[in-house]
Amino acid sequence: MQHTRYEGRKFEETTIEFKPIFQGKIISLQVDTVRLPNGGTSTREIVKHPGAVAVLALTEDGRMLVVEQYRKALEKSQVEIPAGKLDSGEDPMDAARRELEEETGYQCGSIRLLHSFYTSPGFADEIVHLYLAENLTKGEVNPDEDEFLEIEAITLEEAQRYMAEWRISDAKTITAVYAWQVYQLTGRI
Amino acid sequence: MQHTRYEGRKFEETTIEFKPIFQGKIISLQVDTVRLPNGGTSTREIVKHPGAVAVLALTEDGRMLVVEQYRKALEKSQVEIPAGKLDSGEDPMDAARRELEEETGYQCGSIRLLHSFYTSPGFADEIVHLYLAENLTKGEVNPDEDEFLEIEAITLEEAQRYMAEWRISDAKTITAVYAWQVYQLTGRI
Repeated sequence: MQHTRYEGRKFEETTIEFKPIFQGKIISLQVDTVRLPNGGTSTREIVKHPGAVAVLALTEDGRMLVVEQYRKALEKSQVEIPAGKLDSGEDPMDAARRELEEETGYQCGSIRLLHSFYTSPGFADEIVHLYLAENLTKGEVNPDEDEFLEIEAITLEEAQRYMAEWRISDAKTITAVYAWQVYQLTGRI
Repeated sequence: MQHTRYEGRKFEETTIEFKPIFQGKIISLQVDTVRLPNGGTSTREIVKHPGAVAVLALTEDGRMLVVEQYRKALEKSQVEIPAGKLDSGEDPMDAARRELEEETGYQCGSIRLLHSFYTSPGFADEIVHLYLAENLTKGEVNPDEDEFLEIEAITLEEAQRYMAEWRISDAKTITAVYAWQVYQLTGRI
């Protein structure tokens, strides 16, 4: 659907000054001074991120693969669908297959893009490409060296209970659970 | 549901060193050096955010209120549900009512929390509280002084078309559209 991708220019803010603040191993931070539509000025604090993929991976017996991992930014562990950053120049669908296999050990026979979405458009350019993976076969787990994970395969009812308990409470996983529910209700997503 | 809120400690990472990098008007940035579960160390780049609210506001004639605004982080305008940052100490439900009225001019007769979710748990603590607002009555628009918005009321089919066109492409609005679809399919969310 890339040919129809909307690039709206409404209320455009033009950059007057660009101030780099930080360049990290994953994100960078800059402060832009902008000209507003009414001629005034303001500043925008902007985080740059390489983009990420996430996978709604459904087993033959109607379960979704999830991984529990510690999220330092939240100071707690969370149950999420398999996900990870894009490597430089990597095709998002390849990255989705890679992350699924690294984190859960599963390979998928079929995969397709459901949505690409910005997670925090107010301050970050991070985009998450969410894939649906089916026809799964089990292989070997191989997480990153600083990544510690526990894998689970849960039903839709368990996923909804996890949401009520805040065990699942991130945007990409909640979107995936809704997409799955619509899939069950209508037969398509 | 706060009494059941999960605070998982699996694979906990303890902070060895904390390095503040930036304190802005909205976000701050720090780099934590952490002790990993296997005894090794790593660094975590973490953005702190005050939290936000977003509102799935449905009119009597089956439309959702959306606003188009420029998103400097994306260098384009986007159609999103009404949303905004929490003011210091503000109750999220009050903030949701406030943002809905400021951005769209509508007041709501009923409002309830659908979900609270972290937008980017890999690098940020931002949480969005998503509310369902119904029984709307029209009042006066009053956006922030550096906020420029265009309001629209769209059907579910239009929302899905906007998603296909990338006119809607942020996590909170896609979550809201799915929640609305489930509401239409099942009569409840």
